[in-house]
Amino acid sequence: MAVYTNVSDDALAAFLAEYDLGEAVAFKGIAEGVENSNYYLETTKGRFILTLFEKRADPADLPYFIALKQHLAANGFSCPLPVAASDGQALRKLVERPAVIITFLQGLSPRVPNAAQCRQLGMGLAQLHKAATDFEQTRRNDLGPASWPSLWNGRSANADALQPGLADKIDQDLAQIRTTASLSDTLPRGTIHADLFPDNAFFLGDRFTGAIDFYFACTDALAYDLAICVNAWAFEPDGAFNFSKARNLIAGYESVRPLQDDEKAAFPTLCLGAALRFFLTRLIDWTDTPADALVKPKDPLEYAARLRFHRTAKSIADYGGE
Amino acid sequence: MAVYTNVSDDALAAFLAEYDLGEAVAFKGIAEGVENSNYYLETTKGRFILTLFEKRADPADLPYFIALKQHLAANGFSCPLPVAASDGQALRKLVERPAVIITFLQGLSPRVPNAAQCRQLGMGLAQLHKAATDFEQTRRNDLGPASWPSLWNGRSANADALQPGLADKIDQDLAQIRTTASLSDTLPRGTIHADLFPDNAFFLGDRFTGAIDFYFACTDALAYDLAICVNAWAFEPDGAFNFSKARNLIAGYESVRPLQDDEKAAFPTLCLGAALRFFLTRLIDWTDTPADALVKPKDPLEYAARLRFHRTAKSIADYGGE
Repeated sequence: MAVYTNVSDDALAAFLAEYDLGEAVAFKGIAEGVENSNYYLETTKGRFILTLFEKRADPADLPYFIALKQHLAANGFSCPLPVAASDGQALRKLVERPAVIITFLQGLSPRVPNAAQCRQLGMGLAQLHKAATDFEQTRRNDLGPASWPSLWNGRSANADALQPGLADKIDQDLAQIRTTASLSDTLPRGTIHADLFPDNAFFLGDRFTGAIDFYFACTDALAYDLAICVNAWAFEPDGAFNFSKARNLIAGYESVRPLQDDEKAAFPTLCLGAALRFFLTRLIDWTDTPADALVKPKDPLEYAARLRFHRTAKSIADYGGE
Repeated sequence: MAVYTNVSDDALAAFLAEYDLGEAVAFKGIAEGVENSNYYLETTKGRFILTLFEKRADPADLPYFIALKQHLAANGFSCPLPVAASDGQALRKLVERPAVIITFLQGLSPRVPNAAQCRQLGMGLAQLHKAATDFEQTRRNDLGPASWPSLWNGRSANADALQPGLADKIDQDLAQIRTTASLSDTLPRGTIHADLFPDNAFFLGDRFTGAIDFYFACTDALAYDLAICVNAWAFEPDGAFNFSKARNLIAGYESVRPLQDDEKAAFPTLCLGAALRFFLTRLIDWTDTPADALVKPKDPLEYAARLRFHRTAKSIADYGGE
């Protein structure tokens, strides 16, 4: 659940006066995203989302995210488009926070995506990568492989408290990933979403209508983005791996952007790495979040189970790839 | 902040299939109301709010609230209209909770209403009372004067902990109200909103566009509803009484429905009673809400300050009435 910064009607009116969007006719805090405050905003000229960036967002990164969405939208990928104010600037301030108005995107997030949606999502992800091909700005992946040892440092006891013996396994995973060539650098790179979970993807029926929440986007191996999606889309709520969903995801992706041989060879390691990244950040949120926090942390053990699966995978064929 | 029941896309699709509203194209949890889960719902046929009634709502009361809104809307008062499903029923079930789809109402809630909005709100309240004149259903005011002694019972120590000496004053207020004739019964009665705070009223600019959240509506003295609004609208965030706002509120009300002499005579007592009602329920929420609850209780001392003002008022003239 989102944390809300309260925006008064007066503050909103003053903020909107800087745009050519008419006047507000509806304004409601919405439960979308967990890092920022988001509002449904209807004006006399259309419908929008107003986002206020809360303290976890680094203000220095915001121009990158905004430029990326503008680039993707201009290149035919469906995502919210930041709206510029009368002075041409989309990134502004409201209630002492960086703020942006973005266009409203239709669609619903699937709670349990079906196999048809997984294929569509794979296609959508590849379309995102293609649309970003000539995007010139770059951003380091703060949560990439280089960060994992420091994320893990000092957390062994927390992991063993969740599941006895887990810490040793994580140590082994990190060692295995270290011995693999630095995949992020050698595989085809580009701009990745890096957080394309079902709640960040919209569908009308089985048709993918676009992606939101680009606030982890960065420059990294393209196939790593697909590996993140395998973790996020191809496991059932009970933790079971769904082969059909993974196969559809990869096939959908490859129908738009075929994977190279080196990406295929690295795929199980990329999946292991992606699971490790979400396990580590969830472990930190789980152990560092006070019990009375408004935002309930997600269970890191979901990703410990995914790690178990990836440790046994021998090739991309185990994920339905060819 | 609202508590959310999670509604999956599949559950929503099955629920919507019972209506003639087309298919969902957007669905977002919104922070509106604190007792229920509310969603912004856009379908191929229009925009709506979906409400799920959480445990504080008595299911036996829901048909009354729904019939009232239907009656008010049919009589020209602007409020969300419950939408009937194909079988004619508006009150349904979703995720094992009573649920209703209501029409979307444009407007923004003022954080600090201005005097012009107070006049409009007074007119709106009187229009609500008029539109409900021939509404035949009744509902007892569970939070009316008869309930106050039991709400207060055993809370003296809590009150004194907030402000030393407060308990004695509350005892005196209750005694004074007891000696006054049973106002709820002798004054003109009808259907009242009973919770028309600024966050339940919508405006476009200074124009009142309607009221929401009728879940405290009941049958009681009409002037008591105006007294509730004086408490909710005519005090500044710092607790100071704003004479202009109260005067405008009463004048706006009287421009549509003039008060009788007995209502005017009772007005200071009604204002004291209304402040007492909100003080008592806030005191209970304040002391009974666990520290880790998602919903932060409102400060009861805001109403202790209002009680101090009402104790000194001698007539409706002290509120700007004539």
